[in-house]
Amino acid sequence: MTTGREIHLASRPQGVPTPDNFRLVEVDVPAPAEGQVKVRNLVMSVDPYMRGRMNDVKSYVPPFQVGAALDGGAVGEVAESASPDLKPGDLVLHGYGWRDWVVGDARRFRRLEPVAPPSAFLGVLGMPGLTAYVGLLDIAAMKPGDTVFVSGAAGAVGSLAGQLAKLKGAGRVVGSAGSAAKVAYLTEELGFDAAFNYRDGDLAGQLKQAAPGGVDVYFDNVGGDHLTAAISRANVGARMAICGAIAGYNEPVPGPDNMMMLIGKRLTLRGFIVSDHEDRMPDLIREVGAWYAEGRIKAPETFVAGLENAPEAFLGLLRGDNTGKMLVNL
Amino acid sequence: MTTGREIHLASRPQGVPTPDNFRLVEVDVPAPAEGQVKVRNLVMSVDPYMRGRMNDVKSYVPPFQVGAALDGGAVGEVAESASPDLKPGDLVLHGYGWRDWVVGDARRFRRLEPVAPPSAFLGVLGMPGLTAYVGLLDIAAMKPGDTVFVSGAAGAVGSLAGQLAKLKGAGRVVGSAGSAAKVAYLTEELGFDAAFNYRDGDLAGQLKQAAPGGVDVYFDNVGGDHLTAAISRANVGARMAICGAIAGYNEPVPGPDNMMMLIGKRLTLRGFIVSDHEDRMPDLIREVGAWYAEGRIKAPETFVAGLENAPEAFLGLLRGDNTGKMLVNL
Repeated sequence: MTTGREIHLASRPQGVPTPDNFRLVEVDVPAPAEGQVKVRNLVMSVDPYMRGRMNDVKSYVPPFQVGAALDGGAVGEVAESASPDLKPGDLVLHGYGWRDWVVGDARRFRRLEPVAPPSAFLGVLGMPGLTAYVGLLDIAAMKPGDTVFVSGAAGAVGSLAGQLAKLKGAGRVVGSAGSAAKVAYLTEELGFDAAFNYRDGDLAGQLKQAAPGGVDVYFDNVGGDHLTAAISRANVGARMAICGAIAGYNEPVPGPDNMMMLIGKRLTLRGFIVSDHEDRMPDLIREVGAWYAEGRIKAPETFVAGLENAPEAFLGLLRGDNTGKMLVNL
Repeated sequence: MTTGREIHLASRPQGVPTPDNFRLVEVDVPAPAEGQVKVRNLVMSVDPYMRGRMNDVKSYVPPFQVGAALDGGAVGEVAESASPDLKPGDLVLHGYGWRDWVVGDARRFRRLEPVAPPSAFLGVLGMPGLTAYVGLLDIAAMKPGDTVFVSGAAGAVGSLAGQLAKLKGAGRVVGSAGSAAKVAYLTEELGFDAAFNYRDGDLAGQLKQAAPGGVDVYFDNVGGDHLTAAISRANVGARMAICGAIAGYNEPVPGPDNMMMLIGKRLTLRGFIVSDHEDRMPDLIREVGAWYAEGRIKAPETFVAGLENAPEAFLGLLRGDNTGKMLVNL
């Protein structure tokens, strides 16, 4: 019997979550039963969508339960196997994050070819990568020459969406981020044509300066004022992929007061959930995997060490402490 | 020389327009020069979009000029012609409303086959009909079985959109309107399955009662609270054709505070302008023209008599005095 640790939801947050909403719990980890595997987690993901799951509301993923372990994307190594499909040492992707050990049905664990470091399967070659890929190419139907605006562009999804837009021939790629250091990172390291700090205010004015010819595609990770600004600066026929709304995760935010512009500008706003689009994963691995291997796409990562610090990693994510994908090494 | 009358924009309205914003002016109407026709107008249209043109802002149609005649859709009869393409007695559709006589280049007048009364070419077989047709079928991609919600459903566009949805196999068609009489008209005369009075408040609650299975297609003529309610009651994958925003024509209205739902529900909101879709006019005439001739689609009309009363007709339109298409007989 192994002793494992899990992070439980101690209470539902009201507004901004605090450390009190989480509890570290020790549990016994049994040997795998027939058809099961026992996996030691190596790295786990914290994602903005998890904030929504902390509320007790119906949504596209079920809410977390108070007093039970949280879950989410993780990569681990098989330690013991009672399934013919997986063997000790196999690297696996699965949905049992927020714990250092897990025992479960082998069919819930996907074996990974070790073509990239484990964390990449939680980022550029995983859910955030697929989100950027599908949102930009399928939902917003980006065309070569388009001016693309990405909000929250230093985040896991945004940093990939912007680079992907450049590689796909966008005429101009503009990003917003929450600090001067991130803004510099976008233009100096990731190849964005322009970027600005949304904490400086006047989003519409800053966006106008960054994209003087207007915006053809908006990849929205933030919602709220960002969406309002994007609508105000959109060109006729612009498409907006509504991917995340981190501005509204803790509390409702006012909606855009310029929705009327959807009419005159013939705008399309389309929300999406990456899990509807897993059929595109092979395309991501093929196309983006190659660019990643060649070093043509960078996948910034921010690591926090230790399961006990996973709640702090999540709180930091909501504050915007991360550049790129926020991960916890276990 | 004929003496004609025109309605000029006397001043730009601030908020709700008043009669003082209009002026009736007498003008000399010359004989047509080479290539021109002289037309006596029979009926003219007042439309919600005209309110936007009274503001001095860039939009998809140029603003009206202070001190000059307003314009808009009208049907007239050719009185004199100096063009080989039109002859006296021809019925013509054109953009020189708000006046009883007009002289202009014959190429700006489209000869109509008199298959329907003149007013029909300003309604069911004209711009409002095409708006309903394109918005429902192309923009919102309505499928048989869908539950369709139409706001402002007693108006020119809304009344046609709802009937068209039924004829195209919608599972349930629900409308909102601004009086009990209009609500009764929708269900008793136009075949809507349910309708409610938006002036009674609690839009989301009334919509839930009218469409307990949720909304698959929303045809938005109103914006504001209506759009918020539609988003809150939308089913996964719902499509919203953003056609008009009469709630926001006189002053900005707050945007939907539930835009985050676009993500989880995978909603698509798409604004459109009918003039981009004139290639669909032959389909409208063929398909809807046949239904209209057979009496399977009703095109309610509200008439005001006399050019001098055109401003009042327009103000009444903005108040919602009309059922169906608002027209001025000249």
